[in-house]
Amino acid sequence: MDYNELALKMHEEHKGKIEVVSKVKVEDRDDLSTAYTPGVAEPCRKIRDNREEVYRYTAKGNLVAVVSDGTAVLGLGDIGPEAAMPVMEGKSILFKAFAGIDAFPICLDTKDTEEIIETVKRIAPTFGGINLEDISAPRCFEIERRLKEELDIPVFHDDQHGTAIVVSAGLVGALKFVKKDIHKVKAVINGAGSAGISICKLLLEIGIGDVILVDKNGILAPGEEWMNPAQKEMAEKTNRERLHGNLTDAMKGRDIFIGVSAPGVVTAKMVSTMAKDSIVFAMANPVPEITPDEAKRGGARIVATGRSDFPNQINNVLVFPGIFRGALDARAKDITEKMKIAAVYAIADIIPEEELIEEYIIPGAFDKRVAERVAKAVAETAVEEGITRS
Amino acid sequence: MDYNELALKMHEEHKGKIEVVSKVKVEDRDDLSTAYTPGVAEPCRKIRDNREEVYRYTAKGNLVAVVSDGTAVLGLGDIGPEAAMPVMEGKSILFKAFAGIDAFPICLDTKDTEEIIETVKRIAPTFGGINLEDISAPRCFEIERRLKEELDIPVFHDDQHGTAIVVSAGLVGALKFVKKDIHKVKAVINGAGSAGISICKLLLEIGIGDVILVDKNGILAPGEEWMNPAQKEMAEKTNRERLHGNLTDAMKGRDIFIGVSAPGVVTAKMVSTMAKDSIVFAMANPVPEITPDEAKRGGARIVATGRSDFPNQINNVLVFPGIFRGALDARAKDITEKMKIAAVYAIADIIPEEELIEEYIIPGAFDKRVAERVAKAVAETAVEEGITRS
Repeated sequence: MDYNELALKMHEEHKGKIEVVSKVKVEDRDDLSTAYTPGVAEPCRKIRDNREEVYRYTAKGNLVAVVSDGTAVLGLGDIGPEAAMPVMEGKSILFKAFAGIDAFPICLDTKDTEEIIETVKRIAPTFGGINLEDISAPRCFEIERRLKEELDIPVFHDDQHGTAIVVSAGLVGALKFVKKDIHKVKAVINGAGSAGISICKLLLEIGIGDVILVDKNGILAPGEEWMNPAQKEMAEKTNRERLHGNLTDAMKGRDIFIGVSAPGVVTAKMVSTMAKDSIVFAMANPVPEITPDEAKRGGARIVATGRSDFPNQINNVLVFPGIFRGALDARAKDITEKMKIAAVYAIADIIPEEELIEEYIIPGAFDKRVAERVAKAVAETAVEEGITRS
Repeated sequence: MDYNELALKMHEEHKGKIEVVSKVKVEDRDDLSTAYTPGVAEPCRKIRDNREEVYRYTAKGNLVAVVSDGTAVLGLGDIGPEAAMPVMEGKSILFKAFAGIDAFPICLDTKDTEEIIETVKRIAPTFGGINLEDISAPRCFEIERRLKEELDIPVFHDDQHGTAIVVSAGLVGALKFVKKDIHKVKAVINGAGSAGISICKLLLEIGIGDVILVDKNGILAPGEEWMNPAQKEMAEKTNRERLHGNLTDAMKGRDIFIGVSAPGVVTAKMVSTMAKDSIVFAMANPVPEITPDEAKRGGARIVATGRSDFPNQINNVLVFPGIFRGALDARAKDITEKMKIAAVYAIADIIPEEELIEEYIIPGAFDKRVAERVAKAVAETAVEEGITRS
């Protein structure tokens, strides 16, 4: 099917995808006097007297801003805030469809880190949470870090953490299937940008045996000259054997390959040098680093991609709706590392061990159980962490 | 009925009033591939290549931001952005109910004029129009002026212009009924803040014979020491007879009294000094400057208020939905004075002359014809003015 043509037609016919509607009826004078003046003054007064009451009387507690500056949209790069709208509207309707969250696109006419931080802080009173989307590295790191520090509502950069969580959940499932202990396996991640680094950090947190990051310049290792500050920091924490070299070198003997890089950069021959029962997550989109057929030919036991037309789709729609649902339900002030890890295992635990097969190591995008279970685990963890509004 | 209690209950039960929903279905892989990746990339590319296509493929063209800093909310004053949410949500659902517009509250955590201007400009890519709401004077003037200049989408401060338009429309109807020529009548406006000045300006534009503005310090007249800059400017343009004095002095012999001031400041005796067939618009809310009964006792022929439980309600819900509907339909880049005047006569012309009675000089808030006619008149005027996107 030609999704490009279908998408154009659909977007034009409906004039976009989101709509703002009323939850209450507005049909007569009484409705007007209750939803608007004079009655509306009463909830205003309650909130004026106690700001936290905004969660009781307004939509804030279920509203999430999907914020982008349009600099790293899909594979298209810096296309500007207007051109980012279709993606941000799409994200918004996924929030609603998968978790009942009222999400709203905020496309920003600035690329300046400080201005983005400032703007999001200024519009924050309306929202219960902030989902950062398609903001290019390295600005996205600073923007997320500062907003997490300076706002008392959950802030989440989905491109980093949504991806990290769903990849980790998929790996936990795959490792269970091939009966390898996560603490003993060795992984290689190709692509050392924001997604790759974020995946790497989360894998370290859940205790992976060893991991190497590879950039287009080669393996990240202390002493390499070409690394940026974020990569230097990662080089210290990864690559226990202090390997140097390129991707081909990096893949030798590894249990796991994770690609967040470019189409076709991995061959069957490279896969054949990996450890027995190897796991290949080739997530370049729409064309993966290696096709599932090729990877299998190279000896991979399990292959996952970002595509919906192959088995084992690694899709962050399994993550962000449930993460925010849980954080909002608990009225968490933040999304912590423990909450992310809770999400990993909530997703991974959905498929019972005996139902795992090569082609089903992670739940499908439309599995209704996922958002619910993730939300529950995330909310419980927020409560345990003591970071909820009381 | 106790609207305060009803409002509290309703706001708590529904957790506010707005909801963001999808206009398209998201039920299976095909939907996801069309509304989101990979299909969504195609409308993104189209907009990247021609920014104006954002009106074709996204919700922007029907999205209006309801922007407030919470400094002048209802009669409550500066209650902060969170406490303003119930009003801004209320406004949003009125936009939808009366004109099918998708409006969204943006409550700002800053009161600084420059910061407000900056923030609205930065979030503008998402929106087709900006409705400023409950921002205190004099900042509201500068904020609106600058945003109108610096943005190429319609910007409208409803507290000023919505009020001015609906008052003018009511007066046109009332004058038609009492058979007085607008060019020959004399009016007095009590309250020389943003609403009063805005009403005054529009009445001058539609050619009123004479008008006096009165502040708590007295009649605005050249030479008075207490006037602020906006008032000084108005003193030059009004008060042909160069009167000095207080409200009692100002009302003598006047055909029209317009109050945007405080409860109970006008007595029947003061009304009795007005010209024959006098018109009293007492719009202080919820308690008017004078009750309709008292005003009638003083000899007023026509009385209007802001309240829904008296006849002749002067309510800007007759204005803002249609104004924005028309501006958005025409893809106008601005809302001009001519568009506002077109709205005045569109509202005033709805009731045929032979159907006008003392208690029905302006259409009711729920008259379905109003938004439609206003929209049509406003859109046509935008086209005539040549300010539409092509």
